[in-house]
Amino acid sequence: MTNFANPDRIQSMIDGLDAFNATPGEGTTRATFSPEFRQASDYLRAQMEKAGLVVREDAVGNLFGRLVGRDPALAPVLVGSHFDSVPHGGKFDGPAGVIAGIETAFLFQELGITPTRSIDVIAMIEEEGSRFGSGLMASRLLTGKLPTQQLSQIKDAAGISFTEAMRSYGLDPEQLDNVLLPKEAVHAFLELHIEQGPVLEAQGEDVAIVDSIVCLTQLRVRIYGAAGHAGTTPMNARRDALVGAVAVLSELPGLAKDIGQNAVLTVGKVDVKPGGANVIPDEVEFTVDIRAPEEDVVRQLVAQTRAAVARAEDAGFRTDVVEDLFAQPTMLSSEIHTRLTKHADQLQLKSRSMVSGAGHDAMIMADYVPTGLIFVPSRNGVSHSPDEWTDYDQLARGVDVIFATIREMTE
Amino acid sequence: MTNFANPDRIQSMIDGLDAFNATPGEGTTRATFSPEFRQASDYLRAQMEKAGLVVREDAVGNLFGRLVGRDPALAPVLVGSHFDSVPHGGKFDGPAGVIAGIETAFLFQELGITPTRSIDVIAMIEEEGSRFGSGLMASRLLTGKLPTQQLSQIKDAAGISFTEAMRSYGLDPEQLDNVLLPKEAVHAFLELHIEQGPVLEAQGEDVAIVDSIVCLTQLRVRIYGAAGHAGTTPMNARRDALVGAVAVLSELPGLAKDIGQNAVLTVGKVDVKPGGANVIPDEVEFTVDIRAPEEDVVRQLVAQTRAAVARAEDAGFRTDVVEDLFAQPTMLSSEIHTRLTKHADQLQLKSRSMVSGAGHDAMIMADYVPTGLIFVPSRNGVSHSPDEWTDYDQLARGVDVIFATIREMTE
Repeated sequence: MTNFANPDRIQSMIDGLDAFNATPGEGTTRATFSPEFRQASDYLRAQMEKAGLVVREDAVGNLFGRLVGRDPALAPVLVGSHFDSVPHGGKFDGPAGVIAGIETAFLFQELGITPTRSIDVIAMIEEEGSRFGSGLMASRLLTGKLPTQQLSQIKDAAGISFTEAMRSYGLDPEQLDNVLLPKEAVHAFLELHIEQGPVLEAQGEDVAIVDSIVCLTQLRVRIYGAAGHAGTTPMNARRDALVGAVAVLSELPGLAKDIGQNAVLTVGKVDVKPGGANVIPDEVEFTVDIRAPEEDVVRQLVAQTRAAVARAEDAGFRTDVVEDLFAQPTMLSSEIHTRLTKHADQLQLKSRSMVSGAGHDAMIMADYVPTGLIFVPSRNGVSHSPDEWTDYDQLARGVDVIFATIREMTE
Repeated sequence: MTNFANPDRIQSMIDGLDAFNATPGEGTTRATFSPEFRQASDYLRAQMEKAGLVVREDAVGNLFGRLVGRDPALAPVLVGSHFDSVPHGGKFDGPAGVIAGIETAFLFQELGITPTRSIDVIAMIEEEGSRFGSGLMASRLLTGKLPTQQLSQIKDAAGISFTEAMRSYGLDPEQLDNVLLPKEAVHAFLELHIEQGPVLEAQGEDVAIVDSIVCLTQLRVRIYGAAGHAGTTPMNARRDALVGAVAVLSELPGLAKDIGQNAVLTVGKVDVKPGGANVIPDEVEFTVDIRAPEEDVVRQLVAQTRAAVARAEDAGFRTDVVEDLFAQPTMLSSEIHTRLTKHADQLQLKSRSMVSGAGHDAMIMADYVPTGLIFVPSRNGVSHSPDEWTDYDQLARGVDVIFATIREMTE
């Protein structure tokens, strides 16, 4: 049962945006500053204007559509998400939150409500980091956490810098100083995102109101052995780095299962060198991504991972562990959490409080301005895949919560 | 104690050739038909001419240097190896055998011996397959096992076909029909190669006389799971392809150890997809290289590997096994084996009979013409690495065996 939001209009916007895709038929691929990205930006601008918003593109290509409130002196509520994608991903990761913002504006328009406080619908660039290797760029630039001077050094796989790509997209690097969004210019930030996990679907719930974002670390482990010819080196004369790595890898998932407490551990990237079918590996490098709501649990898992690697040392392998990233848990605004929960209840939706296992731009915004984040169900929990799916009715229910909350915050 | 061959001259030729290297200071990299390959070919031609040989380049860039015998009606003995390299490899794998052939010619010249039967010293192209993906190309072309019509379809990583690369190297694809070496035009083929394994060094022996080449197979295994976000998919809701693959990989080396009989099993190439640090892998593909002197042992190990993969099916993973290659054991000429062994004994060298775990051009030549293969020690058994090393005295001892054997076969 939808109360306000229009699932058909949401579907039409999700599909309309998805027309701008470098890999039609093979999932959604929309790299920041690509030709499809410009077309997608133009499409979003047109939808925003249709919803009565005053649109501007900022210095790095974020689109802001303002529903001008009665009192322009009040800082606006910001609502939105990103519109870039991973390669061969889905059409909901990011766009669901952007379209939720635009649908919210359509609802204000349809219901003839002019808020006191302005609302800025935002469509953000480069959240995934798929083009420039470094994610959450829009929120990091808006909040000053990523200095704009670094942008000429950040390059894509083809060696094109962020500033060069900006320029070919029609932006002027000279204007980069204008990208910062002063704290006092934002009343709050709200983001809707797909869950990218199976919990809501499995529990038959409509929305999750995120109260915090997990503690997260990424380790890079290297195991060194000795290369040798696959045909001429007897089994007992080998120091095969892959054999050493497999002994470590076979222990890791069990560590997270055993510790429980919603901890997850993932090895997503493995590089076996030199990589010839007939050469004994002399080096294996792999990532270990560890997340849990409690920092202490993450630290325990890091220690246990290091201990597993140390056992490879005992078995005669030289090893190396580097901590690439450590992010402490991020608390979102409890006041906004309370409001979102209240409106979900009033809309008679089934909601739950959740710790987000993923970062999202909301993580960056949260220690800058009061921030709220809600999730809608992902079918089979799948994301970053052409199979990513959220029913439009479910998406509309999430928009209803966002709409009701923003209406209250801006009335 | 060297009896004939000159270690200093051998060293000077090994180092002279190694000057033509795309990665100086980081091992030897000499791709077939590269500029370094042409310079290396010119260098070898000059050395051959200095040793009194009449040099010709054949239609695919193999260099033949003929020591013309007294009776030109007799088919020559062919001696040599290849002069391409793997990327960042060593300076002995291939060149040791080419230089052994040239040094043999120098010895005939110095000792003033003109053989009755001619001798062709040969320097061959693309044995490693590093550029065109397919190894042993010279011997397969010389023996007609690789039809020349296929060469326009064989491409390097940059998409340049073998025939295009030939042309830029200065060869004429129109002449390809001339590459075939009629059986009756070769009396025998002899190759010296570094062992690329640790046995000779460990046993304090000088040379190995190869009697056969192992049975060899290469499997490609794929384990399929389900992708998912590393932060949002609980441990108990995952079907992580890497977890499935690690269970298989942890069993494999033990299979070869348990079966014994000089079997070896190597996983050298592993591809984990999609390969993002924060994405649960949905596919892992790896190679399994299995070798043993006895075909039956290889077939048993293949069956056991398939059974290990089948257990991953039982654990809920879809799997797939493809046999990319199956080569039966190759017997080398027992007559030549006897001669090589006899001369090693007469030279008071410590020798052993050995089954070769690696293929070499000798494997291809062996079922075409009578073929002999000898190994000299590899320090620490290392090959395909900048650390590859054979002492020049050891190399000279191997050349002595080749020289004495060829002298007998051509007198």
